[in-house]
Amino acid sequence: MRITLLTDFGTADGYVAAMKGAIAQIAPSVFIDDASHDIPAGDIMAAAFALRRYWKVYPEGTVHVVVVDPGVGSERRALLIAADGRFLVGPDNGVFTFALQDATTARCIEITSGGVMGESISKTFHGRDIFAPAAAHIASGRALETVGRPATEPVRIAVPPPIATASSVLGEIVHIDHFGNLVSNIPGEMLQARYLAKIAEREIRVVETYADAEVNDLVALINSDNVIEIAARNGNAALMLNVERGAPVELHG
Amino acid sequence: MRITLLTDFGTADGYVAAMKGAIAQIAPSVFIDDASHDIPAGDIMAAAFALRRYWKVYPEGTVHVVVVDPGVGSERRALLIAADGRFLVGPDNGVFTFALQDATTARCIEITSGGVMGESISKTFHGRDIFAPAAAHIASGRALETVGRPATEPVRIAVPPPIATASSVLGEIVHIDHFGNLVSNIPGEMLQARYLAKIAEREIRVVETYADAEVNDLVALINSDNVIEIAARNGNAALMLNVERGAPVELHG
Amino acid sequence: MRITLLTDFGTADGYVAAMKGAIAQIAPSVFIDDASHDIPAGDIMAAAFALRRYWKVYPEGTVHVVVVDPGVGSERRALLIAADGRFLVGPDNGVFTFALQDATTARCIEITSGGVMGESISKTFHGRDIFAPAAAHIASGRALETVGRPATEPVRIAVPPPIATASSVLGEIVHIDHFGNLVSNIPGEMLQARYLAKIAEREIRVVETYADAEVNDLVALINSDNVIEIAARNGNAALMLNVERGAPVELHG
Repeated sequence: MRITLLTDFGTADGYVAAMKGAIAQIAPSVFIDDASHDIPAGDIMAAAFALRRYWKVYPEGTVHVVVVDPGVGSERRALLIAADGRFLVGPDNGVFTFALQDATTARCIEITSGGVMGESISKTFHGRDIFAPAAAHIASGRALETVGRPATEPVRIAVPPPIATASSVLGEIVHIDHFGNLVSNIPGEMLQARYLAKIAEREIRVVETYADAEVNDLVALINSDNVIEIAARNGNAALMLNVERGAPVELHG
Repeated sequence: MRITLLTDFGTADGYVAAMKGAIAQIAPSVFIDDASHDIPAGDIMAAAFALRRYWKVYPEGTVHVVVVDPGVGSERRALLIAADGRFLVGPDNGVFTFALQDATTARCIEITSGGVMGESISKTFHGRDIFAPAAAHIASGRALETVGRPATEPVRIAVPPPIATASSVLGEIVHIDHFGNLVSNIPGEMLQARYLAKIAEREIRVVETYADAEVNDLVALINSDNVIEIAARNGNAALMLNVERGAPVELHG
Repeated sequence: MRITLLTDFGTADGYVAAMKGAIAQIAPSVFIDDASHDIPAGDIMAAAFALRRYWKVYPEGTVHVVVVDPGVGSERRALLIAADGRFLVGPDNGVFTFALQDATTARCIEITSGGVMGESISKTFHGRDIFAPAAAHIASGRALETVGRPATEPVRIAVPPPIATASSVLGEIVHIDHFGNLVSNIPGEMLQARYLAKIAEREIRVVETYADAEVNDLVALINSDNVIEIAARNGNAALMLNVERGAPVELHG
């Protein structure tokens, strides 16, 4: 079995290693894969985007732990969700928003049982004391209902939908990736016959792949997540256009 | 069995991967967990703090390798320490200071045996040529005494103890974490009925958990390592207070 | 079996985790080791250097995946290379240059078979859709020829050789590592009786190991890859000398 870890902890403080140790105590033979520990501090949206990229690429049975948790110590719930054969573990703050959009089934448990949690639960480190042990128990085959009680729907981040008119589609940039590619909220299907994207007062042509562009050429394309993205071949579109998350983007013919 | 790795190497040069390869040569079925490779270059104190957070959370039998080693190539010893059922491997420069404070038993070996080391030992890369192979042999079940000879006490970093008076406790900031939280040398037990912390000319109230604070509010609390910490909810206390390691902090009633 | 991953993706976007998931789908019991995801974006030379440091330290049978691929979506080939008992998987753009210099045997396959690739291959994410599945199949024991067809020699980066005269050796800096050490293209054998290195108008003495230098002292030495390197003990030589990749370095008596 495999457990993946996604956090905003960085690694240098040893917090992530403590989570791994807590998992290994309970499930000594589980594979622990780092997804990332470089999510910007407290950035629930970025965590939700990253999770969407991999959760269903992993085989059934995988347990995905997400700890981007600015509300630790508050009343927010600790969740375990069974979705399409995989398991999602983390705080109820919206980190599962996009994963759940892509799930056909989802069953939600609020983690409560004393048995899952360590003997002494810190008020500040639920990653080590609640989420890691819960994930390890599930990866070890324990039944869902033994770690908590059925729960109502998880919190979801409100994401503005793109607006289609007769002549154009108006969306916005919802994520900027490591390469400076600008990811929009416009699904690939909405591209249709449109061949121009407008962002930051620039008209950008739509291509099929990065290699259709010259180096540093700005282009729009349907990315590997099947949404419209603005990119610069071998360059950084975010820096070139000086745009941030939330910038409007328009597709037209 | 599991081996964890903590270094200041970064990963981009391939040095860490060479350590993993050296381990896999000797112990092909061992789990190798990255603790961190982002310790600031040569920062023995930071490594010692990180190690404390996870070494005993891992199950017995785990081998923890620490290579933050500004003295590589000098006469400093290469150590293997058996402590509370876990194993610690690394240079004798103080990186084990806080782990050993928390250990109830410790047996110390100086790694010397030609059998542990590779055929040709570089003068600059003991991580690959000494520490990784030693860890792999121990994880594979080899007896401690086969990798070296009994050694005297490891070097320890001198950490200033907090000073308690009738009315207050005076300590200092000994670590600043990824979130900008300021970790002091004052154990949680010394808080007692005191409810104010003074740092950088600011009076800060003591709370139970981050969630008791408003966003960006500065607070003091007992952290998950059971020491007093100054934090800002969803903010960066180190930046807000503009303090560095060594800054004095005082608790009073 | 083990698969290592070397990319310039960073981890925060979830692309690396998607590659791991694609591997786990095909080879659920394989160990996946992160080599690095911090290669500078598109820096084929840096990837080639890093790979050289670890590919043969790993045991035979290991599959090393390298995805630093500025030409993704173009006509560049996807390669699988069997070399000295290990396997190399990645784009045909020079990332294998230094590994192949150190290999005694190499057999090259162009990855083509529909069976290796996922049902729908994205035009922008060959890491997940081609390289990860190919690596997983090879790690699972599939024969090389089932994933593609025999291919001609891989592309190699042209690296300038050092020039030896009667009195000196003239080379250049080809890599700067995480610690600011300056790695040259001069093999250790060419040092001979020379005891001075000249770089950035500075004369620097040649020593055997870092510990022969005072703190912040600039020295030249034969590094753990057996090439001449300029380093500063516990300091950053690149910053101290203000030099970049390509800077000339000269050894003389």
